[in-house]
Amino acid sequence: MDKVKVGLCGLGTVGTGVVRVLENHQARIKHKLGCEVEIVKILVNDVKKPRDVIIDPSWLTNDPDELVANDEIDIIVEVMGGIEDTNKLLERALKNKKQIVTANKDLMALYGQKLLRLAKENQCDILYDASIAGGIPIVRTLDDGLASDHIEKVMGIVNGTTNYIMTKMTDEGRSFDEVLKEAQELGFAEADPTSDVDGLDAARKMALLANLAFKMEIDLTDVAVKGIRDVTQADINFAESLGYTIKLIGIAEMHDHKAQVTVEPTLLPKDHPLALVKNEFNAVFVHGEAVGETMFYGPGAGSMPTATAVVSDLMEVIRNLRLGISGNTMIDPQFKRQLKTDQEKYSRHFIRLAVEDQAGAFQAITNVFSDRNVSFAKILQLPAEKEDHAEIVMTTHEISQEQLLNSLQALEKLDVVNRLISHYRVDGEES
Amino acid sequence: MDKVKVGLCGLGTVGTGVVRVLENHQARIKHKLGCEVEIVKILVNDVKKPRDVIIDPSWLTNDPDELVANDEIDIIVEVMGGIEDTNKLLERALKNKKQIVTANKDLMALYGQKLLRLAKENQCDILYDASIAGGIPIVRTLDDGLASDHIEKVMGIVNGTTNYIMTKMTDEGRSFDEVLKEAQELGFAEADPTSDVDGLDAARKMALLANLAFKMEIDLTDVAVKGIRDVTQADINFAESLGYTIKLIGIAEMHDHKAQVTVEPTLLPKDHPLALVKNEFNAVFVHGEAVGETMFYGPGAGSMPTATAVVSDLMEVIRNLRLGISGNTMIDPQFKRQLKTDQEKYSRHFIRLAVEDQAGAFQAITNVFSDRNVSFAKILQLPAEKEDHAEIVMTTHEISQEQLLNSLQALEKLDVVNRLISHYRVDGEES
Repeated sequence: MDKVKVGLCGLGTVGTGVVRVLENHQARIKHKLGCEVEIVKILVNDVKKPRDVIIDPSWLTNDPDELVANDEIDIIVEVMGGIEDTNKLLERALKNKKQIVTANKDLMALYGQKLLRLAKENQCDILYDASIAGGIPIVRTLDDGLASDHIEKVMGIVNGTTNYIMTKMTDEGRSFDEVLKEAQELGFAEADPTSDVDGLDAARKMALLANLAFKMEIDLTDVAVKGIRDVTQADINFAESLGYTIKLIGIAEMHDHKAQVTVEPTLLPKDHPLALVKNEFNAVFVHGEAVGETMFYGPGAGSMPTATAVVSDLMEVIRNLRLGISGNTMIDPQFKRQLKTDQEKYSRHFIRLAVEDQAGAFQAITNVFSDRNVSFAKILQLPAEKEDHAEIVMTTHEISQEQLLNSLQALEKLDVVNRLISHYRVDGEES
Repeated sequence: MDKVKVGLCGLGTVGTGVVRVLENHQARIKHKLGCEVEIVKILVNDVKKPRDVIIDPSWLTNDPDELVANDEIDIIVEVMGGIEDTNKLLERALKNKKQIVTANKDLMALYGQKLLRLAKENQCDILYDASIAGGIPIVRTLDDGLASDHIEKVMGIVNGTTNYIMTKMTDEGRSFDEVLKEAQELGFAEADPTSDVDGLDAARKMALLANLAFKMEIDLTDVAVKGIRDVTQADINFAESLGYTIKLIGIAEMHDHKAQVTVEPTLLPKDHPLALVKNEFNAVFVHGEAVGETMFYGPGAGSMPTATAVVSDLMEVIRNLRLGISGNTMIDPQFKRQLKTDQEKYSRHFIRLAVEDQAGAFQAITNVFSDRNVSFAKILQLPAEKEDHAEIVMTTHEISQEQLLNSLQALEKLDVVNRLISHYRVDGEES
């Protein structure tokens, strides 16, 4: 195999980037692979539209068959987006034994497991690192670099939109609604921001990362998700005064062969490496048994980072093809799927209560906790704006989810408690 | 090739770790490579010594020839340390067409270029990622993951000992001497700490990373080095009051096809990702034209992180062997070596002066700078402990090395300036 032939689906900003990267780095790529890579067909809507990049016009086509049913083509690189039609196109490509590289996160979220299974049946690879965290090679790292380590925890900021919003709320003291509107105007957030701000996008990615890290089948429905809509300036300020920053954090953990995966607004110590990841940047923190703590930080999206990630995946696919190990992307889960129960889920929490400012209130509240063996790291009573009212803000030591829920239920029944204002998970080592 | 056979030199903590990792991950490694890996010989000093790991006693030998002259063996994994004898052993192995993986940073610093050349002549690889930053796969990332990007800047904390010392000095307000002594007692610093605290170890690593990043031959002598011996508590406090943290930072930059590589105590904004890298941790920040900013963070050393990195390198060597592209580790420099002159080196600086507290002193000093077109970001005059004396602390905007040196010379000639106390580079984007 002297030359590998590629069919490119899509020639928008990412597709154009892929063409450029391949052109500019031809010599280096040959050096690293021992063979050449050539684009022979590009699927576009309009073959006559002027393009930003110099290409042979004969490459362009609007007929998918010229790619997926083309015997000459070894690999399909999909950077055109879309879900239903794209899924069908990739299914046909796999049945024709084409290797696949895709940057399509919506497609992988919906049809990823199915496509991976079909790829395996056809001895093909699907590489999708570009769909997870743009410029961060986290799939490859979990799958390869840390292959020889037992991974205990993966913790990350895997959604750029929500991190942008949380950063602006924290640094500029602005409200969620105001920052969301700005992010939409700047193109960092979609017109319908639900999938981002409610944590679904992050949850899909965490499910994929947990699969890879723990070699266990984890579905989206196994992820406990809470978005950032309800996080207020007051929450951010109280967290700050206790030494924490609030971020939307995905956490996948494994203890005693049981997994727990969550996505929720989480308090991190201000000097935790993830606390400093700002704006639309992503970062993934991995704790391995042997390696200890490692972190990967980079742009979560953007057309050039994505194009670069696509080319890295393309190189990996070619390497596998030449090694005769294509079809190994989908790893049959090595371990039986076991999830933690509420009794087994342990973490720290931040709790904010609106209370009556009267004698015995504080006592009544702390009794609820001590009856359930919940102990505090920090506790703070502050006067509220309304007379005769106060706020209590506290962080707990490690408690089970069951202890937390029991305590919150009991608190809501107390006369002196007006309202449970908010509660968040606390994570990250205190320095 | 169904089975790749490995000779392991050394069975200390790293060697034992390598044996364990290979044993525990045999299935996964086969899956990723399409072949098995087997250790067949281990070179040790004492074949009778009891070992922490279960091994076939017939593997053990104290005769190097049983490894390097053994036709059965494909790959030598060197984790025994030492320089002269080890160099000779690896030279013989290469002449016998053995592939090499090494974690030996002192050896690579002294004989790396020579060994890489010999490897190339013999169509062999030498992989040495474990020798650079322990658990961070930075060589692989520069060489592979970001292969398809132009790298503009590599900036990192690549020496754990100095980062440990700077962290303790900053967080606990202790002196260099005191912290160094503690680090020696804890085993984080060598009895002779010269190579670490004077920045040489970091300089060697930055030279290697600059080679990889810029595809240009950069030698140790091309790196401008300044260690941390002279950094005082007062420097740290003044930096802090201006919003900066002092770290020993290696910077390799490329503009207009000209490189500059430095290792020196550097002020970074307190919220820069590298400013939060604490204790013995390492981190490398890479700025690529397409990808933008990415950062890799992890333990700089330690026997299990190193063993894991060694096994990752071993897998890469096997992959290359099977792809028929062994011997490509040494890349002939693609670009002509061009270094920046003092007129072309631009950066920001922090300068501390002891001055006479008299009318016109401040004016005389600022005149020196303005005559040389140096403008300030921040400037601060403070009374010193001695009467009639003061200190001036300032940070400049970007100026050339030439402007800096000229200004400092002129200042030292001024009667009102008693002493140039210290000056450091300032880097990292201000938020």
